[in-house]
Amino acid sequence: MKGLELFNVIKNDMEIVERELKKIVKTHDPLLTETSAHLLNAGGKRLRPAFALVAGRTCEAKSDKIICLAVALELIHMASLVHDDVVDASYTRRGMPTVKANWGDQVSIYTGTYLFARSLDLIARCDNPVISRILADISVRMCEGEIRQIATSYDSDQTVKDYFFRIKSKTALLISASCELGAVACGAQERQVKALSRYGYYLGMAFQITDDILDFTASQQELGKPVGSDLRQGIVTLPVIFALTLSPDRERLAGIVKIKDKKEGEVLEAISIVKQCGAIEKAYGVANRYIEKAKNELKYLPSGRATDSLAFIADFISKRRY
Amino acid sequence: MKGLELFNVIKNDMEIVERELKKIVKTHDPLLTETSAHLLNAGGKRLRPAFALVAGRTCEAKSDKIICLAVALELIHMASLVHDDVVDASYTRRGMPTVKANWGDQVSIYTGTYLFARSLDLIARCDNPVISRILADISVRMCEGEIRQIATSYDSDQTVKDYFFRIKSKTALLISASCELGAVACGAQERQVKALSRYGYYLGMAFQITDDILDFTASQQELGKPVGSDLRQGIVTLPVIFALTLSPDRERLAGIVKIKDKKEGEVLEAISIVKQCGAIEKAYGVANRYIEKAKNELKYLPSGRATDSLAFIADFISKRRY
Repeated sequence: MKGLELFNVIKNDMEIVERELKKIVKTHDPLLTETSAHLLNAGGKRLRPAFALVAGRTCEAKSDKIICLAVALELIHMASLVHDDVVDASYTRRGMPTVKANWGDQVSIYTGTYLFARSLDLIARCDNPVISRILADISVRMCEGEIRQIATSYDSDQTVKDYFFRIKSKTALLISASCELGAVACGAQERQVKALSRYGYYLGMAFQITDDILDFTASQQELGKPVGSDLRQGIVTLPVIFALTLSPDRERLAGIVKIKDKKEGEVLEAISIVKQCGAIEKAYGVANRYIEKAKNELKYLPSGRATDSLAFIADFISKRRY
Repeated sequence: MKGLELFNVIKNDMEIVERELKKIVKTHDPLLTETSAHLLNAGGKRLRPAFALVAGRTCEAKSDKIICLAVALELIHMASLVHDDVVDASYTRRGMPTVKANWGDQVSIYTGTYLFARSLDLIARCDNPVISRILADISVRMCEGEIRQIATSYDSDQTVKDYFFRIKSKTALLISASCELGAVACGAQERQVKALSRYGYYLGMAFQITDDILDFTASQQELGKPVGSDLRQGIVTLPVIFALTLSPDRERLAGIVKIKDKKEGEVLEAISIVKQCGAIEKAYGVANRYIEKAKNELKYLPSGRATDSLAFIADFISKRRY
């Protein structure tokens, strides 16, 4: 995602977060230092820290705990990415080799758990039981979502509801918590905290739907990984679910979805079926409705630069095409 | 480990812990419920909860938080076992198929992370920042130890110090924390907390050394997994390190240690070299010195049934032969 200038309001704090992340990955162990640094340098949008910081800025108060929280959120996200790359057998992410590709599954599993454990350490230092509880709860639900994704892979009988459950667990909950806890850390009022939690949830849903659409519509270069990766891994996303009702070739598509080891031609055929039946446009429609819902929550926040940023970010996500 | 009657003093509380564990593994997700219940029913000594409860009993005060803590400790341990089974490619543990064997690596990774996340949830509910911080710190160090184990596997040039670092991270720290935090949860005095922490550390070291010896001396039936498993996986334990200096066949042993895909005959030959040179006896000597150190810490605790139990447990561990 380009357009991080949208986060100008928190530019200085984001630099502090980046420095803290760099410090954290310097461990006692040379191998863990290397794998964690590789992961950090592979980039990423630092979206979760950014949301926490902007959400915090919508409040009057400031907090020295918010940097800790922001770093912890990114570590949880990074931990989930390393484990995902093992589970999905992914060799590239954002155009770079994954930890799995360079160091193998064993090292990846412990690097992920290690980063997760480091996040706990930071969360404990936030000294706020609400933060600890919400993040523990979300970590549990993220795992439930991932297990659902495995259990339902290559299954062409999924409903939109199944899909929503999965992307909520995988993406929306942590983005929602980032917004919510940024406000909690700054001592915001209950009404504001709840509005930010809902904003993050709706935005997270829109973000993941857009991500899943781009897996069909963007180029390999834009994606930093092969087009149609989800399809190859058996992950059934919203455009496919829509195409399985909309397309005249729905039976052929269902057949391809179920194939465990798809040939390149089959993947391309499925992509073409999905793109030709209006499923992409329908999925964008859903994403846009979530964006509208997200923006609608902003009326509960005090007006100002931070709240404006949140509106811009919502618009940006609805428009990104790569 | 038989001899759980040693824990009679906490029998009722252990039954509560077991019921709580059974409740916890009933999740929203059918697959996670199945994998977690499989893991729970595969048995285990529940050593960490037991230590926390006995340590708590050495104090005057009682605490309703201690059950939560005890369950959380077992969940952390279970989580580490599932991940270890993936990393070590183990198909049986305690004579039962592992989660990896039944459901594969992908499901195992998330089951492990899920159990770890559930433990966080419980730790957050302990509402004690000391407990949160110590367990976060230990989780980090457990991962560091596991990564060291991978990085040093099949390496015959390891020192006793390298080995001690690994077993400290892998086993002793969590047992030490179990004893320490049991006391913390019950509001014990600083001196007592520290003595219990050291007791647990020494006992944990002795426990792991004994475990590593039994991998050579016990039968497959007693172990619930093949004899010489560590050797097969390239994990260099204390008896091997000693044999690499003591044995006239040390060069042959070093050669076998380095082989990645050992033939059955090579494993048996290495076991025989280790057993014939006095390395086993020397390793038992080290374990016994740790046991003595553990027992020596008990003088800082008030006398009573709980403290007596801790002495009995130490003796039991030094004597177990399977």
